Amino acid sequence: MRICKVIGHVWATKKQDSLNGQKLMVVRETETASEENQVFVAADMVGAGVGEEVLVVTGSTARRAAGNESIPVDSAIVGIIDSMEVMKEKKNRK
Amino acid sequence: MRICKVIGHVWATKKQDSLNGQKLMVVRETETASEENQVFVAADMVGAGVGEEVLVVTGSTARRAAGNESIPVDSAIVGIIDSMEVMKEKKNRK
Amino acid sequence: MRICKVIGHVWATKKQDSLNGQKLMVVRETETASEENQVFVAADMVGAGVGEEVLVVTGSTARRAAGNESIPVDSAIVGIIDSMEVMKEKKNRK
Amino acid sequence: MRICKVIGHVWATKKQDSLNGQKLMVVRETETASEENQVFVAADMVGAGVGEEVLVVTGSTARRAAGNESIPVDSAIVGIIDSMEVMKEKKNRK
Amino acid sequence: MRICKVIGHVWATKKQDSLNGQKLMVVRETETASEENQVFVAADMVGAGVGEEVLVVTGSTARRAAGNESIPVDSAIVGIIDSMEVMKEKKNRK
Repeated sequence: MRICKVIGHVWATKKQDSLNGQKLMVVRETETASEENQVFVAADMVGAGVGEEVLVVTGSTARRAAGNESIPVDSAIVGIIDSMEVMKEKKNRK
Repeated sequence: MRICKVIGHVWATKKQDSLNGQKLMVVRETETASEENQVFVAADMVGAGVGEEVLVVTGSTARRAAGNESIPVDSAIVGIIDSMEVMKEKKNRK
Repeated sequence: MRICKVIGHVWATKKQDSLNGQKLMVVRETETASEENQVFVAADMVGAGVGEEVLVVTGSTARRAAGNESIPVDSAIVGIIDSMEVMKEKKNRK
Repeated sequence: MRICKVIGHVWATKKQDSLNGQKLMVVRETETASEENQVFVAADMVGAGVGEEVLVVTGSTARRAAGNESIPVDSAIVGIIDSMEVMKEKKNRK
Repeated sequence: MRICKVIGHVWATKKQDSLNGQKLMVVRETETASEENQVFVAADMVGAGVGEEVLVVTGSTARRAAGNESIPVDSAIVGIIDSMEVMKEKKNRK
């Protein structure tokens, strides 16, 4: 799963019927080391709010998360992160 | 889903038969922070026009969006964006 | 689909039996803004020639294009581009 | 598979029910040449600990690793690396 | 398929049972224009040796190559490259 922050909402009136009822949120991947954190749209499955850190699944797994293979989503929020504990690493050390 | 802008059309006379009838549009991903926004081709499912911002699904989800598993598309436009509301963030703040 | 140019051929005598008969071509993605256009190998489904611009599908969709789920291809050429019409955009304008 | 190092844990109380019982670990891809090693979350299938180098599968294969297609994971730790033997290469030599 | 060079072996005693018997090799993608060629692990299906250039499939296609959907591999070597013939291109010419 990708570690993302929910940063907003998106609205689309004209869309595939099977997307009706899906809550579409704008998320930004936070844990890449680069400045090029990617912003994309994920369907919310867990009642996430703007500002929260979440776990996002992509690809065919997102359709499984949506519980219906015919819903055309390829990204889904499946958990809200309470806490993360990450070991300290020296830069460039493997 | 990726947030893209429709920037054009592409025509291919010689193609797999199962692609007949698909409207193929050139889209550019707009919401990556880098300059390297990616340009690719997506099949339009919602009547999108050039200049519009759209939601694009990729991978096996695109075939679901096309409604027929045998259509060889791996990117599909599934919604036209009306509006987006994104929280303000300070740069480099997580 | 990715927009690619066919730049060559690749031969592999020792390969999985199910790849026999597949015409494997070297393609380069042309429409990314970066210098890091990716070169990879795609199975040709439409009789493409070196120098032509083509539409390439990847992932599980490539197996659908090959018409046989057991053929181990993850990239396939599904169309030859006749023409592309792309709107003019100012740099950095969304 | 990607070569990753386990660098921590992540907790999410509010999550999809089917994720209950999954041990979610934070991993960092170690073997890309760039500085932009990616950090993401993978479900642990083999009892991996923080600091260990592991093999991670992604995409639909992660669900197979989880042994249940309905578990919404798209990354899974499937092995703990004992050792790696890599040939010496001159930089920029192909 | 990606064009890779086999650069080594990896051993993992503690792994998912279904990985037993798979020969896991370290490969490096050679044909990206960037310096950031990616190093990852692929299951060998064709008897490839260190130093050889190979064709690697990824994603669900790797499981098809392995001939058993339940084997948790997402990258597989499916051919050994004998030769490649690539047209000369001027830099930055499309």
